[in-house]
Amino acid sequence: MSTLILLRHGQSQWNLENRFTGWWDVGLTAQGVAEAQAAGRTMADAGIALDIAFTSVQSRAIKTLNLALGTMQQSWIPVIKDWHLNERHYGALTGLNKAETAAKHGEEQVRIWRRSFDVPPPPIEAGSPFDLSGDRRYAGITIPAAESLKDTIARVLPYFEARIAPELRAGKTVIIAAHGNSLRALVKHLSGISDADILHEEIPTGKPMIYDLDPDLKAISRRYL
Amino acid sequence: MSTLILLRHGQSQWNLENRFTGWWDVGLTAQGVAEAQAAGRTMADAGIALDIAFTSVQSRAIKTLNLALGTMQQSWIPVIKDWHLNERHYGALTGLNKAETAAKHGEEQVRIWRRSFDVPPPPIEAGSPFDLSGDRRYAGITIPAAESLKDTIARVLPYFEARIAPELRAGKTVIIAAHGNSLRALVKHLSGISDADILHEEIPTGKPMIYDLDPDLKAISRRYL
Repeated sequence: MSTLILLRHGQSQWNLENRFTGWWDVGLTAQGVAEAQAAGRTMADAGIALDIAFTSVQSRAIKTLNLALGTMQQSWIPVIKDWHLNERHYGALTGLNKAETAAKHGEEQVRIWRRSFDVPPPPIEAGSPFDLSGDRRYAGITIPAAESLKDTIARVLPYFEARIAPELRAGKTVIIAAHGNSLRALVKHLSGISDADILHEEIPTGKPMIYDLDPDLKAISRRYL
Repeated sequence: MSTLILLRHGQSQWNLENRFTGWWDVGLTAQGVAEAQAAGRTMADAGIALDIAFTSVQSRAIKTLNLALGTMQQSWIPVIKDWHLNERHYGALTGLNKAETAAKHGEEQVRIWRRSFDVPPPPIEAGSPFDLSGDRRYAGITIPAAESLKDTIARVLPYFEARIAPELRAGKTVIIAAHGNSLRALVKHLSGISDADILHEEIPTGKPMIYDLDPDLKAISRRYL
């Protein structure tokens, strides 16, 4: 048996402003910092002894993880960062708030994007201030122009199988600090949730979700700490 | 050519109290936090683009690194943690301040320990509150009972050659966030400092030391930022 902990980053500046963030690198708010530290205290109080951590290459997830590990006095565990755990790429919606999105694309279209499993938003525009092609953290990687949730799952799950599942099969206690949609991908897989239902699965910021897994990595139980 | 940056952790609680710390895991003071952030700003202002980081398994070095990387917006780089970069183990002196050490062991003996390259302090006592044998971060590792500077060098340099030197030979810009004596080991090696002179090399907390290295990893220049 092994334990997997999923932790969505604490509140970011753009969570607060209700803007589509995706791959854009936004920092935590003061509340987000407090959420991360509280997550660490909760895990420490539950006696959780972590063996290894995985996170994205985005600051809000990395900082959440670092703050939680520091609070737990477990900063010394290995931490692996990989873009496959990044948030869903929101394409041309990146940077827009809800009102701007509705004004630009229409309420009906926004509803379709929010409700659909496999319809990506429009691709990010050339010359967008949110274009990441010059960011050296993605050197050698084909950055998506936009992703549906299905697209996100298609890159998260192979990474999970290749890099994280072997640690769990070895009986380790693993934490993944990531994002609303990259964590949805994992929850869908581990809990066998349908394409339709996964859209309604809201993962709160800064609340550790604990999976107890059997040796085949089937979920025995799932709960929030 | 490659660049190596050595960064000693910011002020720790026991730096402030003037106590021998060694492998004991002590946090940063508020000043230490500020030093780490200032180090990050200095490196960012100098346009330093890091490729990979190495640090010890001790919180004060890890936190210093995380704070500096966060300030630089470079938290996404790989960070490798390893006990070989830990501080020198001070054995039975761990936890003692200068006055206590002199009272317990005599001024003359303290002078010998401070001035000698290869005389370790007395081994840590069985049942010491600073015994780390139950700390799971060191599971499977033979924790030294006490180390001379020579002993510290004897574990730092093979690690440097095996894990860090290949990154530098590949032309990467590497940062090592570590401790007074594990960094002395590297400075002695890279700058060809004698056994006698290395004892007088004081590495300040939170000041990035920059080495430009040739392809054989010989120092072309060394300076503080």
